[in-house]
Amino acid sequence: MENQLSLFYGLSFLTVALAFAFAAYLYLWVKKQRTSNARIEEVSLLIKEGANTFMRREYLVLAKFAAVAAVIIFILLPAPVWQGDILNNLAMAIAYIAGTVLSAIAGKIGILVATLSNGRTAEAAKEGLKPAFLIGFRGGAVMGLLVVGCSLLGVAAVLMLTGDSTILLGFSFGASSLALFAKAGGGIFTKTADISADLTGKVELGIPEDDPRNPAVIADNVGDNVGDVAGMGADLFDSNVAAMASALVIAQSLASESFANISMVFCYAILGLFASILGIATARVGKNGSPTRALNSSTYVTTAIFLVLTALATVVFEGFSWRIWGASAVGLLVGVIIGITTDYFTDDTKPIVRRVAHASGSGPAFTILSGISYGFISALPAMAGIAISALVAYKICEPMGEGYAIFGISMSAVGMLSIVGMIISNDAYGPIVDNARGLAEMGGLGEETIRTADELDSAGNTVKAVTKGFSISAAGLTVISLLGAFMSEANDALAEAGKELITGFDIMSPTVFFGILIGAAVPAVFSAMLILGVDKNAQRMVKEIHRQFNSIPGLKEGKKGVKPEYGKCINIATAGALKELIPAGLMSIVATLLVGFIGGSLAVGGFLLGNIVSGLLIALFMSNSGGLWDNAKKYIESGEEGGKGSEAHKAAVIGDTVGDPFKDTAGPSINTQITVVSLVSSLMSSLFVLFSIF
Amino acid sequence: MENQLSLFYGLSFLTVALAFAFAAYLYLWVKKQRTSNARIEEVSLLIKEGANTFMRREYLVLAKFAAVAAVIIFILLPAPVWQGDILNNLAMAIAYIAGTVLSAIAGKIGILVATLSNGRTAEAAKEGLKPAFLIGFRGGAVMGLLVVGCSLLGVAAVLMLTGDSTILLGFSFGASSLALFAKAGGGIFTKTADISADLTGKVELGIPEDDPRNPAVIADNVGDNVGDVAGMGADLFDSNVAAMASALVIAQSLASESFANISMVFCYAILGLFASILGIATARVGKNGSPTRALNSSTYVTTAIFLVLTALATVVFEGFSWRIWGASAVGLLVGVIIGITTDYFTDDTKPIVRRVAHASGSGPAFTILSGISYGFISALPAMAGIAISALVAYKICEPMGEGYAIFGISMSAVGMLSIVGMIISNDAYGPIVDNARGLAEMGGLGEETIRTADELDSAGNTVKAVTKGFSISAAGLTVISLLGAFMSEANDALAEAGKELITGFDIMSPTVFFGILIGAAVPAVFSAMLILGVDKNAQRMVKEIHRQFNSIPGLKEGKKGVKPEYGKCINIATAGALKELIPAGLMSIVATLLVGFIGGSLAVGGFLLGNIVSGLLIALFMSNSGGLWDNAKKYIESGEEGGKGSEAHKAAVIGDTVGDPFKDTAGPSINTQITVVSLVSSLMSSLFVLFSIF
Repeated sequence: MENQLSLFYGLSFLTVALAFAFAAYLYLWVKKQRTSNARIEEVSLLIKEGANTFMRREYLVLAKFAAVAAVIIFILLPAPVWQGDILNNLAMAIAYIAGTVLSAIAGKIGILVATLSNGRTAEAAKEGLKPAFLIGFRGGAVMGLLVVGCSLLGVAAVLMLTGDSTILLGFSFGASSLALFAKAGGGIFTKTADISADLTGKVELGIPEDDPRNPAVIADNVGDNVGDVAGMGADLFDSNVAAMASALVIAQSLASESFANISMVFCYAILGLFASILGIATARVGKNGSPTRALNSSTYVTTAIFLVLTALATVVFEGFSWRIWGASAVGLLVGVIIGITTDYFTDDTKPIVRRVAHASGSGPAFTILSGISYGFISALPAMAGIAISALVAYKICEPMGEGYAIFGISMSAVGMLSIVGMIISNDAYGPIVDNARGLAEMGGLGEETIRTADELDSAGNTVKAVTKGFSISAAGLTVISLLGAFMSEANDALAEAGKELITGFDIMSPTVFFGILIGAAVPAVFSAMLILGVDKNAQRMVKEIHRQFNSIPGLKEGKKGVKPEYGKCINIATAGALKELIPAGLMSIVATLLVGFIGGSLAVGGFLLGNIVSGLLIALFMSNSGGLWDNAKKYIESGEEGGKGSEAHKAAVIGDTVGDPFKDTAGPSINTQITVVSLVSSLMSSLFVLFSIF
Repeated sequence: MENQLSLFYGLSFLTVALAFAFAAYLYLWVKKQRTSNARIEEVSLLIKEGANTFMRREYLVLAKFAAVAAVIIFILLPAPVWQGDILNNLAMAIAYIAGTVLSAIAGKIGILVATLSNGRTAEAAKEGLKPAFLIGFRGGAVMGLLVVGCSLLGVAAVLMLTGDSTILLGFSFGASSLALFAKAGGGIFTKTADISADLTGKVELGIPEDDPRNPAVIADNVGDNVGDVAGMGADLFDSNVAAMASALVIAQSLASESFANISMVFCYAILGLFASILGIATARVGKNGSPTRALNSSTYVTTAIFLVLTALATVVFEGFSWRIWGASAVGLLVGVIIGITTDYFTDDTKPIVRRVAHASGSGPAFTILSGISYGFISALPAMAGIAISALVAYKICEPMGEGYAIFGISMSAVGMLSIVGMIISNDAYGPIVDNARGLAEMGGLGEETIRTADELDSAGNTVKAVTKGFSISAAGLTVISLLGAFMSEANDALAEAGKELITGFDIMSPTVFFGILIGAAVPAVFSAMLILGVDKNAQRMVKEIHRQFNSIPGLKEGKKGVKPEYGKCINIATAGALKELIPAGLMSIVATLLVGFIGGSLAVGGFLLGNIVSGLLIALFMSNSGGLWDNAKKYIESGEEGGKGSEAHKAAVIGDTVGDPFKDTAGPSINTQITVVSLVSSLMSSLFVLFSIF
């Protein structure tokens, strides 16, 4: 059996190499596409530089944070250094740093390719939908392949070298730390710029979106990249690593067959990556086809390939169980179904978006009220889906023996995330074509090209809603298995301290209940702090934009040769994002520590549950109402309900502005908050056992 | 010990008689106050008739619902009639009907007095703050005394006659059914009318609030009464009965001292009512004093009296425990503290409201974003307070023996609700003075009087926020003890069926987890359905108002003698409220039954937990952001941030419109939804045991 595991380590590295090679091929393919328009090149360069500025400063702050965290980890984890094996602590600290670095590299290269693809996509749009789609999609796919490759590489290397799945939690925590900065920081950045640009440009001056006179326009385009490409990539890197890590922690704690089960986790990850490569390679817009259909059908192809391959693997390899295969298939299918229901609530060809657009005719209060209401309702199918897939996975795997039921849930999360390479490709496609649309406008490529770019962009928005629903749900299943991982870690610590083991977290215990209520409040406060951060930051940037319009002569009038100081807006967005993000992140970590040191392991178990439940609810609510307002606005702009300039349109613009930080800052950051909190709990479990009050 | 219990039954009836007598005295006192203005009398009569129309139709629908429910209860509960004792089933059905009828009577008389007080308060406002305050407050106090008197009367009578606390759950369910209709239906009614009146009057025509030309103006004033007086009274009747019922179910299941503990529940209820009578009798506005201070200080006086009296009772009576006293004191103190923190988020002399008012200067999107954010943050202190009081109550009472810990929590809820007579008086004061303000305007009593009425009204709004936080928190503690009651009921059923007993609800069990996720989604969907109901209904009413303005000649211009058809608006609000409410109520009950019949008792336990946690979060969020938007608008109207007519004001008006159904329809109805679901679960527990799939 150990031989089988070695085989899978080998195959993991091989598949990662294949993914990296394919990514390199796509990168070179994108790079050799034609660029000819000087204006586009110039703006594209500005965007690239802006993104680099943000990433550099973000990584600098993160490096300081990570250094402090690494020292604390070295001293305290997995056990205080004066009690345990110092080499273990060193391994944990190194794994933590490796987690941050690998994720950072993937993000950095992803941004590089995205900022390379945007201009080329814009120019290809002159030729039509098909070539432009391919550049945008392949640019995004580089990010997808890198993220999944790096995560598999890291997990396999850490486990092969240390043989200890607890160290993996350190690696996973590294990935989460980075994701918190990248997703929440990038989210604040992008919405600061977006809202400020809209308010001063579209609303005050009445100039179009992406007008080069607007000092915030470059920051806005930078934001798409740092928020949606780098941030989302880090987020899914984090989820993917956490899903694998928790499955491996549980697999290692199983009494029987643990090698086969560990092999199985790697085998599924390998086949998922392989299926994504095939899906990416075959993605194309058909004749007169729609880009939305192209993106969705490649997702379905990937799903089908993955299911077939894992079934074959179950036949071929010794110790692989059909029950586990079933659990993972359920996870994947539910993920797809949740994606489809999300689409129902956010697609403008479906009734919900149209109802909100229609309600906007009665004024902005109705836009907001109906959007919030449907957002809340949209949480039900996804939460029911997660609940059912957890229940089914558990029941399928329960007969296999003790511990297998929760292993089944963790494999259900691994199944859901197996096709994450494909999901990220679809998701990163969005900001690239969004940028391309802006560049087409700034480069003066003409109405026809802008219309093509618009069509690409709208497909990006639709698909984004689906992938977001998917990734939130995957995170939901992952944290359930992290709860299992936490219990197994806490019990190790309790056994060592000679205390009674935990057999579960009973909600009738007031200690658990105490944790649940506090845990449920944390995502609400966390998301509120991020939204207020965007709010404050946008007010700073609006002030700067007004200053530029008032003090740079000829700017407002669009005099030739007069350019705004784009860099100043980028600096404001960057500084503000990092400043506003830190208190929110600290709040969630401090709350975890407080609950742990007051109530001990039982309270922490409750805390994690409350956090998951309200986190899922708020994340789904915010992502979906945001998406639905965005599309209601676009639906009205397409000429319905009075079209552009009507009262309904004004109301829908207000809805969209409210939705912006919902869907691009707070909503998707909650994922990361939940994962960070879960990992902090698992890592600190021995300290909670030693030092808690109750 | 049984003698002691008989003593407390006797004392209960005596105190109830005292409360009724005092209420009658206050009623007569209000009635003999001067009325002289013909116009006020006329409008006041219209309001009274409108309220009666709504109540009559609501009670008619309820009667049908109750008849069906009573038949189902008779057939199935507490055990299927072919299995158990038919007399028990009859008692349960009768108790259920008694619960609805007693609550309805209290609501009906409350409305009668409120609609009697509003005109008299308006006229007294000519004389100044002091006399007007007294009429408004005493009018509200009649409702407070009746609600608490009826609930104590019902609980004592049911338990004395049947000796079986399970039958009490039937009585409590009756109270909940009525509360669901009264609170959610009244909430939809009041906000339909309020929003339509504002949109057509203030926004479109620019005529003042309460202008008699507006066809919706009477419906708006009726709404204050049916939503805030009758609805809120039914809601707190329901909470109070549920708190006592669950404490009594748990007390009866305790192995030792159960008579003393049952006596204790009644003793606390008696002393709470007595303390409220004293508090009400002494409430007065001091020389140049503020009405807010008068309302708050009478709450504090009541609290102090209650604590002293219960301490004395603990000394005097055999078997009364200091630990239980401690638990109940903790509940009460935490209730007061939560009230104060709620006040911090919603009072316009505090920074939060001012920040939202300031953000409104940047446009309505910022009003909404900041209001939602602070609303989410405001949930933290209340949830932490509930968590801590549950934990402390549990820990204080745990040493008393098995089952006492959860009894301690239930007594903590009883403690929090003991002063509910005072809370309702404060709360019912609000709509009376709100009406009075409208009447002062419609009766042409002059600027000075309107200003006085405004001051009374603003105190009502501030106090309302506090009492709402208080009642949501009390409901939170109550449902925890209902969870305990559910477990004890489910175990009775399991024991009878010869199955394994439940020792708790472990969140690691996927069945429990399944219930938790579905339970958490229900309050979100429930509140969304109510909000959408208001939305739809308001659009119907706006259409009717436009019709009247267009087809009744001279109405818009205010020609003398031309009157709008007020009745049509009242009919629309009434019909719509009842129509929109039923699907939301059914959805929550059906979800409970589905979860119960799929997952059995374990899933239901999880369902209740998820329901409580997300219900608390959403209710606090909605009530507080609604209150804060309301006060931010008023703050701007007082001349700050540009004052009336400024851009900030327009934005704040939009915030207020969004907040209206948040704070007066959905937020406070969630309480009732949680209680209904908890009671359905407890009542159906034996059926879940017999017929569930898993």
